[in-house]
Amino acid sequence: MKFFEYLKHRAEAIGSWVCVGLDIDPEKMPPHLRPRQDGVLAFGQEIVHATADLALCYKINAAFFEAQGLMGYHALELLVEGIPEDVPVIYDAKRGDIGNTSEQYARACFDLLGADAITVNPYLGRDAIEPFLEYEQRGVFVLGATSNPGAKDFQNLYCDGKPLYEHVARQVSQWNERGNCGLVVGATRGEVLSQLRQIAPDLPFLVPGVGAQGGDLEEVARWGRTDSGVPPIINSSRGILYASTGKDFAEAARAAAEQMRDAIRYVAGS
Amino acid sequence: MKFFEYLKHRAEAIGSWVCVGLDIDPEKMPPHLRPRQDGVLAFGQEIVHATADLALCYKINAAFFEAQGLMGYHALELLVEGIPEDVPVIYDAKRGDIGNTSEQYARACFDLLGADAITVNPYLGRDAIEPFLEYEQRGVFVLGATSNPGAKDFQNLYCDGKPLYEHVARQVSQWNERGNCGLVVGATRGEVLSQLRQIAPDLPFLVPGVGAQGGDLEEVARWGRTDSGVPPIINSSRGILYASTGKDFAEAARAAAEQMRDAIRYVAGS
Repeated sequence: MKFFEYLKHRAEAIGSWVCVGLDIDPEKMPPHLRPRQDGVLAFGQEIVHATADLALCYKINAAFFEAQGLMGYHALELLVEGIPEDVPVIYDAKRGDIGNTSEQYARACFDLLGADAITVNPYLGRDAIEPFLEYEQRGVFVLGATSNPGAKDFQNLYCDGKPLYEHVARQVSQWNERGNCGLVVGATRGEVLSQLRQIAPDLPFLVPGVGAQGGDLEEVARWGRTDSGVPPIINSSRGILYASTGKDFAEAARAAAEQMRDAIRYVAGS
Repeated sequence: MKFFEYLKHRAEAIGSWVCVGLDIDPEKMPPHLRPRQDGVLAFGQEIVHATADLALCYKINAAFFEAQGLMGYHALELLVEGIPEDVPVIYDAKRGDIGNTSEQYARACFDLLGADAITVNPYLGRDAIEPFLEYEQRGVFVLGATSNPGAKDFQNLYCDGKPLYEHVARQVSQWNERGNCGLVVGATRGEVLSQLRQIAPDLPFLVPGVGAQGGDLEEVARWGRTDSGVPPIINSSRGILYASTGKDFAEAARAAAEQMRDAIRYVAGS
């Protein structure tokens, strides 16, 4: 089944739009795990174990593993392997390069790591994204309007009367011939969510920036769903991972994920 | 010494502006190396051994190593370790994410891998690039105008009367407080080289797209140098790496690098 179809079914089955972001920072982990060589992996595995039935999917941030070198790469492989097969994995790597290079990144993500979706950067244009799109069953989230302060530097520039992120959304809609494109849209930008939903009624949104970054859940719930019913994939990383830094961190993460799921249900009116 | 100062000195000392791009595709390597488990590493090491005195620097393409999984990551580490200390290494990874994530990418590149410079993507704006810039002694090449066909999709959009890549060049000039920023400018875009040189007289250019991609060396030599004399860093990957697929591949790579160095000297009139 195609990625977004599967996601829609899973959201209905478990009643959750929560994406648990595995941005595992060794310095923020519970102190008892920090000295362990396999601390990051052990932490990630316990978080997965505690949240898998609540998680619409996981989003794994490549950078935090790369920053641990070879050991980190190995932990990444093992962590992905250990995620139950019914929970999709988004590899949040923001990749993108000329065609022959993006091909290699796509292979790394989909064939080797076995992720179900990836985040990519639009700056190099279509041929940088095409190699990812050729994996028809997987999902490809293109950065649209991000949630960070620097988003205004280029994404908000007006080009031919429209902000750059709108151009990106329009192009991505056109590139979506196989139905495997999505958009990254930050939760901190309520008005942008509604604009982009109108421009791209069929593109699923991956929405980071709820929680630590201060995004507005109501706006996300209101505009996040596609015309065909794929819900917004609402990511929380820090708010779940570091809900407690005690030995009860996994329980606390579960409680935080549950709370977020319920808050979304409440604002979505379901 | 700061990265770009060092590069300028090295260019003068060895009389070469050639950056050897290590985009090692196992399927394009000499057949006798393909079956070897350590084939990519062995190939890379022989190329380095054969070209180190001709190379202004090396550019290592992250994707080709990531596509080999854990083994590839290990090969990457060993390859970088084995490059003579006087030859700088640019990690061509096109990274960029929100601040706390870019911090991790910077750590991976500079602290762990020990690269001297990196390529980054501007789409997320300043805070995505700042964590790299904090490494004052290293170089940070921001994508400006790339050499691929899709470059026209967004980079060429007119925003407030100027193409997007011009906005990027202007911003990067402003972010260059520490003197450690450069720009990636494709060699296939002669008129862009001259424009960007006028806009950003002090930003060193990393120029891919000569050779296989058909860029114009004369334009590069003409516009590539900064006001303070940092030469363009002119990358060739396929033209050098796969100059021969026989057992003489290293010799052939050396000859190709030498030829390119001499062609640049000729057009640069030195």
